[in-house]
Amino acid sequence: MADYRQAGVDLDAHAVLVRRIADLAGRASRPEVLSGVGLFSGAMGLPQGLGDPVLVASTDSVGTKVLLAAACGSWDEVGRDVVIHCANDVVTSGASPLLFLDYLAVHALDATQTLGLVGGVAEACRQAGCALLGGETAQLPDLYQPGTFDLAGTMVGVTERSRLVLPRAGVGDAVLGLPSSGLHTNGFSLVRRILAETRTDPRAHQAELLAPSRLYSGDVRRLVEAGLPLHGMAHITGGGLPGNLDRVLPPDADAVLDPASWERPTVFTWLQRLGGIAEEEMRRVFNLGIGFCLVVPAEIAGQALALLPEARRIGELVPGQGRVVWR
Amino acid sequence: MADYRQAGVDLDAHAVLVRRIADLAGRASRPEVLSGVGLFSGAMGLPQGLGDPVLVASTDSVGTKVLLAAACGSWDEVGRDVVIHCANDVVTSGASPLLFLDYLAVHALDATQTLGLVGGVAEACRQAGCALLGGETAQLPDLYQPGTFDLAGTMVGVTERSRLVLPRAGVGDAVLGLPSSGLHTNGFSLVRRILAETRTDPRAHQAELLAPSRLYSGDVRRLVEAGLPLHGMAHITGGGLPGNLDRVLPPDADAVLDPASWERPTVFTWLQRLGGIAEEEMRRVFNLGIGFCLVVPAEIAGQALALLPEARRIGELVPGQGRVVWR
Repeated sequence: MADYRQAGVDLDAHAVLVRRIADLAGRASRPEVLSGVGLFSGAMGLPQGLGDPVLVASTDSVGTKVLLAAACGSWDEVGRDVVIHCANDVVTSGASPLLFLDYLAVHALDATQTLGLVGGVAEACRQAGCALLGGETAQLPDLYQPGTFDLAGTMVGVTERSRLVLPRAGVGDAVLGLPSSGLHTNGFSLVRRILAETRTDPRAHQAELLAPSRLYSGDVRRLVEAGLPLHGMAHITGGGLPGNLDRVLPPDADAVLDPASWERPTVFTWLQRLGGIAEEEMRRVFNLGIGFCLVVPAEIAGQALALLPEARRIGELVPGQGRVVWR
Repeated sequence: MADYRQAGVDLDAHAVLVRRIADLAGRASRPEVLSGVGLFSGAMGLPQGLGDPVLVASTDSVGTKVLLAAACGSWDEVGRDVVIHCANDVVTSGASPLLFLDYLAVHALDATQTLGLVGGVAEACRQAGCALLGGETAQLPDLYQPGTFDLAGTMVGVTERSRLVLPRAGVGDAVLGLPSSGLHTNGFSLVRRILAETRTDPRAHQAELLAPSRLYSGDVRRLVEAGLPLHGMAHITGGGLPGNLDRVLPPDADAVLDPASWERPTVFTWLQRLGGIAEEEMRRVFNLGIGFCLVVPAEIAGQALALLPEARRIGELVPGQGRVVWR
């Protein structure tokens, strides 16, 4: 892994850890990789057969989900999350994940924590089909409290220029929603406040709270390979449906969503009841069960739904002002 | 800038800031950029004329230099540092910087701080010739102390496959050193300890301590365009010359360096005297005035030095065990 080194205090432990990280990264490689671990940068070729390749890139972090992971002593899930979150961002442009680099900043290197996190990162890279080409593990004791860490990453995907999806939604289009696995990586500042105020032990609800994000690259690929036109895609992250689907709306259309058109996962109803959270705030903060939206011409909505059995038609575009409104 | 949004508390202030960040990013673009700010990911094509492109990527952070920048209330320099640091990593493979994404994590959004940092990032992207294609600004008040922040970034460069530089150094090669501008981004944990123990106000030495890193892409390009063979390049970061040049040494050769062959910048002698630091530790922690090393066949060293007037011949490879030793 490029740059997995640092002038740390315990250089021997660090060297052992770097070798084990390199092993993990080696298991998340691709044939196009030319150099990885140990040099200053990782190098890889492009997949064969691309005539006019376009790169698509996104950087993101897991946010305060890391604090809940730390409280639960559970690392693998957020390691996977950071990869899948960035992959889903890249997938909105119709690109396939190609290479990933992680950034892990810690108070002090703890082998269980670091290998758990990087193990999750490597596992999700395999799932997403991208190479773990590099990363940085920074020991910054004066910046991070003992036990805490921050985890971010960068995904670079690639697509044929003719297949790049740029938003071109319009009135009459249908909005399809793909189910989330739960909270994904957003809303954890509110979740942690609810848990603290109600003295609820997160470890008793760990599986639901830390469930890794769902990856949507396979769903999108199925539609693209069927030649179906996509007018826009939205990854539902911080800001919920109103704060993300709006990014692919034209200024003269609103998306009208029917919240009865999909089932809300129990983790959201539980959190809402536990914290006494207003429906308005729930909608602004959480994905509420829809992790990814596809905007498609209404006439192909049926075909798309037939290819994606878990998808639901959750709304449509009507004349408006570029906002998301609720039926 | 892709993903420059978040469900923050002050969403209006955030929206204004996002627009100003987008303006800054727009001034660090390239003609190949297809989409940037406001979507979930940024997209760009590859430069014209590449037959078999290879991508080269690196993620890194500014380390605890951010804490010194915070103490001085000075942001632009570390913003530039994160870009240049990653660019120099990519340059070691012979690649040219193509696109950059930054990751800024803060306690709370402060317009002066954020715009100072991102302004520095954008300025350095222009200098390095890459597009600022995206980034993430995360408000994580429970993870970061008031006023503190972390800054990381990812650079993707590109090169023709036939011009990719992978280490192939051997006994007899010469080591050329290019001057650093000072500390660059490494050794700041030690610097801060020295300043604290001697009650030295960093603001009185701000210019020397925070001087942005030097970019080496132009120097390397000059050698590549002259057709000179490069057997390896090392970016001198945490670990100093012994901990970085060793990464491009073969297992059967040592690099013997002559510390009298270049001038040590005054910031290092001042810090060494102020903190009473042993020479051994100085060499292990700081770049000591050499920010980048080129390993070249001895017979072309003269030609290379003629093209790079600031470079010095600082050592040579002799039979050994892959270590850096001092004459």
